[in-house]
Amino acid sequence: MHTLTQFRLCPKSRSIRLALAEVAFEAALAEERPWEWRDEFLALNPAGELPVLEIDSGPVLCGAYAISEYFSELLKDREKDGPPPPLFHGPLDEQAEQRRLVDWFHGKLDREVTRELLVERVYGHLMPGEAHAPDPAALRAIRANIRYHLGYVNHLAHERRWLAGDEMSFADLAAAGHLSSIDYLGEIPWEAYPAAKAWYARLKSRPSFRSLLADRTPGIAPAPVYADLDF
Amino acid sequence: MHTLTQFRLCPKSRSIRLALAEVAFEAALAEERPWEWRDEFLALNPAGELPVLEIDSGPVLCGAYAISEYFSELLKDREKDGPPPPLFHGPLDEQAEQRRLVDWFHGKLDREVTRELLVERVYGHLMPGEAHAPDPAALRAIRANIRYHLGYVNHLAHERRWLAGDEMSFADLAAAGHLSSIDYLGEIPWEAYPAAKAWYARLKSRPSFRSLLADRTPGIAPAPVYADLDF
Repeated sequence: MHTLTQFRLCPKSRSIRLALAEVAFEAALAEERPWEWRDEFLALNPAGELPVLEIDSGPVLCGAYAISEYFSELLKDREKDGPPPPLFHGPLDEQAEQRRLVDWFHGKLDREVTRELLVERVYGHLMPGEAHAPDPAALRAIRANIRYHLGYVNHLAHERRWLAGDEMSFADLAAAGHLSSIDYLGEIPWEAYPAAKAWYARLKSRPSFRSLLADRTPGIAPAPVYADLDF
Repeated sequence: MHTLTQFRLCPKSRSIRLALAEVAFEAALAEERPWEWRDEFLALNPAGELPVLEIDSGPVLCGAYAISEYFSELLKDREKDGPPPPLFHGPLDEQAEQRRLVDWFHGKLDREVTRELLVERVYGHLMPGEAHAPDPAALRAIRANIRYHLGYVNHLAHERRWLAGDEMSFADLAAAGHLSSIDYLGEIPWEAYPAAKAWYARLKSRPSFRSLLADRTPGIAPAPVYADLDF
């Protein structure tokens, strides 16, 4: 059995869970707390980053970048006969747009919002003996950044059917990985961003999203609207 | 003429300059100071990140990720007849290892070293009216991280001919983009890492490296060994 080592609120882990579900690749989930820096985990991925996919009788793939490109390449042959695979597809310039946005979400959004929010509201809460309340100044800065990023997603969702173009791509799944984590923590003011909300509602009702919506991180309850399809 | 918008000490810009030189793709260099957030630049890349490649009568490619994958795909056909192109190549598991390391350098090394070092020693120095001396505590933390990362590069260079395997890949160029910036600032204790040094000396003597070694950032002199091939 293939194994995906991940953390439930890790946005990159979530984007890969969505991608694997979209391509019907089944993997058992192993939970890793990224702040523990366990030796066994570092032996698997010396970077200490999530997710890691161990393919049965195959390679160990470290990180959302390596995993998403691996499956994109693997599925290239399918593209000719059916709908575009939900990773990277189409002419090179369209793929470049898909990757620009993946970079936006897994790079810029992660740095300016998700990584900091998890430190303030999740890691600080779950780390034994080190629990601390979130820093109000940090939360204010993060919330301002959330509005900036939602504004950009809203703009894209208003102009296009999917964030990178006519078809769903890994850009949508990368965005959803982050926004679903932030939404779990009740930090997304959806009402102010109707096009982003409509796009997210469409994604949220896909079968690939179900296992994410059923997730519960022990010690941290999700916001009431988190799993609601009519949020 | 194609145009690459970049900043001379930006590690991701450098990795792409190396890649373009390796594949003999000529582009004029335009200099952008990333901390200025100029409207014209944000119109080109709303993320405000470098590098950006404008292909004549072609797409605008934003970011090292989109650019490197674009050229990798473009060069796939060459792979059959000649040496592997200097981006991603070989079976899928080998490509995954190349991408794991690109992620290490453009993600982890950037976050733990290069981005912070540039803020402390370059941006803080060049920003008009806001010039400030580096924070000693921040520099100490950055220097400890430099040793950790050099230890890892040394380990890889000891075990393998190139960082990701037998052939040069974008993993080497991503690493070189960062290490050459850090080296410009005189922050690399090469003597303690002989395998890393031998690997870097080999890269440094390639023709693709020449334009980087000739670079001078106004207001910031390079370390004496920066352009020396017998460092």
